[in-house]
Amino acid sequence: MSDLSSSDLSPFRDLLGEGGLITDAGSLIRYTHDQRALMQGQTPGVLRPRSTEEVREIVRLAARLGFGLVPQGGNTSYVGGATPEPGRGQLVVALERMNQVRSVDPMGFTLACDAGTILADAQAAAEASGCLLPLSLGAEGSCRLGGNVGTNAGGLQVLRYGMTRDLVLGLEVVLPDGSLFSDMRTLRKNNIGYDLKQLFIGAEGTLGIVTGVVLKLWPAQTRRATAWMQLTAGAPIPEIAALVRRETADLASTFELISASSLELVADMRGAELGLAAGPGGAVLLELSASSQRIPLDDILLGTLEALIEAGHVEDAVLAQSERQRREMWLIRETIPEAEKHAGGSVKLDIAVPTSAVSAFLTRAGAVVEVQAPGTRLSFYGHVGDGNIHFNLMVPPGRDRIGFTGEVEEGVAHAVYAVAIDLGGSFSAEYGIGRFKRDLLSRYGDPTRLALLGALKQAIDPQGLMNAGAMI
Amino acid sequence: MSDLSSSDLSPFRDLLGEGGLITDAGSLIRYTHDQRALMQGQTPGVLRPRSTEEVREIVRLAARLGFGLVPQGGNTSYVGGATPEPGRGQLVVALERMNQVRSVDPMGFTLACDAGTILADAQAAAEASGCLLPLSLGAEGSCRLGGNVGTNAGGLQVLRYGMTRDLVLGLEVVLPDGSLFSDMRTLRKNNIGYDLKQLFIGAEGTLGIVTGVVLKLWPAQTRRATAWMQLTAGAPIPEIAALVRRETADLASTFELISASSLELVADMRGAELGLAAGPGGAVLLELSASSQRIPLDDILLGTLEALIEAGHVEDAVLAQSERQRREMWLIRETIPEAEKHAGGSVKLDIAVPTSAVSAFLTRAGAVVEVQAPGTRLSFYGHVGDGNIHFNLMVPPGRDRIGFTGEVEEGVAHAVYAVAIDLGGSFSAEYGIGRFKRDLLSRYGDPTRLALLGALKQAIDPQGLMNAGAMI
Repeated sequence: MSDLSSSDLSPFRDLLGEGGLITDAGSLIRYTHDQRALMQGQTPGVLRPRSTEEVREIVRLAARLGFGLVPQGGNTSYVGGATPEPGRGQLVVALERMNQVRSVDPMGFTLACDAGTILADAQAAAEASGCLLPLSLGAEGSCRLGGNVGTNAGGLQVLRYGMTRDLVLGLEVVLPDGSLFSDMRTLRKNNIGYDLKQLFIGAEGTLGIVTGVVLKLWPAQTRRATAWMQLTAGAPIPEIAALVRRETADLASTFELISASSLELVADMRGAELGLAAGPGGAVLLELSASSQRIPLDDILLGTLEALIEAGHVEDAVLAQSERQRREMWLIRETIPEAEKHAGGSVKLDIAVPTSAVSAFLTRAGAVVEVQAPGTRLSFYGHVGDGNIHFNLMVPPGRDRIGFTGEVEEGVAHAVYAVAIDLGGSFSAEYGIGRFKRDLLSRYGDPTRLALLGALKQAIDPQGLMNAGAMI
Repeated sequence: MSDLSSSDLSPFRDLLGEGGLITDAGSLIRYTHDQRALMQGQTPGVLRPRSTEEVREIVRLAARLGFGLVPQGGNTSYVGGATPEPGRGQLVVALERMNQVRSVDPMGFTLACDAGTILADAQAAAEASGCLLPLSLGAEGSCRLGGNVGTNAGGLQVLRYGMTRDLVLGLEVVLPDGSLFSDMRTLRKNNIGYDLKQLFIGAEGTLGIVTGVVLKLWPAQTRRATAWMQLTAGAPIPEIAALVRRETADLASTFELISASSLELVADMRGAELGLAAGPGGAVLLELSASSQRIPLDDILLGTLEALIEAGHVEDAVLAQSERQRREMWLIRETIPEAEKHAGGSVKLDIAVPTSAVSAFLTRAGAVVEVQAPGTRLSFYGHVGDGNIHFNLMVPPGRDRIGFTGEVEEGVAHAVYAVAIDLGGSFSAEYGIGRFKRDLLSRYGDPTRLALLGALKQAIDPQGLMNAGAMI
């Protein structure tokens, strides 16, 4: 790979024009530093194509000149997936100028857009056509759809609508040899050989650069009913989630656990009591939604809450009586990552277990931390309706964040992963592998899986041009 | 590959025992003839493993002895996907003795089973645990889940629950080198590198032999509301489908078009008037379902029908007042393939278009057939809520079925495909490629897609051991 200092990027400037190449140190920072400020990346330059054709030219040129490429959307990865690695001389390909919604079909419920489209912009385009794009996550104001596809993003409505993979109908991808895989059809069904687009979803940019995306939409959800539930001591979360699915006929779009400790962090940051409390078993934010006024959502929610109280799982519940009250419930949930940061930061473990094992995991993982890292404050919350728990260890007051992170990742994290894996779970639910979890993949991946991963990478990107250092 | 007559299969007999190998001509027939009786296959023997370990041994042995393998489930492929080809000396690997449901988790809504489990048996196991396995298709009494996975089966409830791909959480696959890819986890979220199981879904057994499957379940749908709608002349199907999605809050699980001509075939076979009629625009079988009595399904259905009548799309509708009446509606829909057979058979074109293009397709494709094959009777029906139309050309009275099939497939079929493709559609929605549509794949697949297909096949099955002749 090229030597940083002597890199001649003029062929890229010739291709992309002045605004298409960034090389000055100050402007590079926002492309080279990761979202969690854990890694200081390095790049000779950032390329900003305006079209799929320019991406193809970039790829051909990079292959010829020996530059590795790191595709980047909103640079919001939690695992350093879009950070160019020091010493590799990788160029960043920032998709930010390819940010147009190409079309919306409100009759067929599909949306096609450039990969650099900001998620919130795509949501707004869907909404303007009376539709819902259900992908929703904390970073939606800045993350871009190519990144969501590359990481198979999850978020707040997976329970009902699935992961990004479940929403993708079509993709356009520039392959490492510069050829274009174009499958932007809006078909729900299309069995014509291997479903090649699946390869690129969750591949973290290691097999090509996604330039276009077609997504499924749903009818706009014009009705909502939202409740904040206080769980009793030892309330079994899997049973509650299963009961909610049955009683609401799967109209629940959100089922988020919020631990008492996470709630405390939010209160600490605000410096005020919150209007809402956790029960001994924590709290759950439950939201139902529907596209039709024919669905009596309030009655369904009330009946469900009554059933949960009767079963002894919920001790009290608050129903949002206004949009203001609903927003306050959501704000508490959405503020947790910021509140963790405010309290000194956390080490984020992104655990998945079978949904029926959520309570078992929390009990056992809590005990493991108590034994191996006594006194560590926990903040756990998340999409437990899908078996996804953000199980975070708070940096103790006075401790260096990066030092503590390393210590946890070498030590107690593995004990927590062991609990998850013993329950049939995983060390990465939705964040992916990136550069921070690369070692975990080889440590916990079985040899057949790793051999297949390697064979695919070799088959599609034999030169190792694409996002080298991520995942593999 | 081996010469049929001299094949020594004794190593397989030693491995599998007497019941594990079939070689006598009479018993071979049901494995060598395809479902539509279009192709007479040939095999030196059928292997019937009882365990994943035996499948691994078979694969290793076959690789060593130079036998190609054709995995087979219920042998219900419409495209010859499971038929051993004459002259290739391929052994059939029949999964029929690996037919056990391994576990059901009614709290986590998952089911794990052997790949040879009959779909109806898996449905029954789910039901016995208060759950729904929504995959449902005509062949469900005999097709097996490994085949459903290999073909990414669709069926009658895709509208709400998706294709087989959308239901698969985990797979176990014996690879061409005899190694085992085992990913039978029941996780909803697991972002740990390329999602390798996606490769094998819809791969038609060309990359390995699926031996185990984990599927998503849903709460049992204890309530249903069903209607038979008669469409007005020129009623726009996409608008109707979109309105149904909105008004029913996506509680519609089935939206099936039945053309007047398909209905006539059913009446002809029965030799009696049907109690139900098509309108000038055909008929639609619409069913809503829910897991909770809190959902007023009848009101929702009635309100939706009123809206459709008011919009001028529906001229009359019958609501099923009893389970008997509901069964009769379904029976008419399910009888169409048999009625086509009874009338002399049909050439089945399995078209997909964007859901918003269904009416445009029907108009244009009908006109094309009228011009290019005047007088041909059509039977079209299917899952139009997903944009999937079974667009079938009836064999004219007195014509030889196989001769007519060849003539259509060389001629007018391409004109119909051209209409579909012009609308952004596809020549195979759910049947797959198999051996009958192999030429279509190379004719209509773009070079980049075909190169990627080949690269994957080469990377995973370099010897071409697995289902050679299917798809590629």
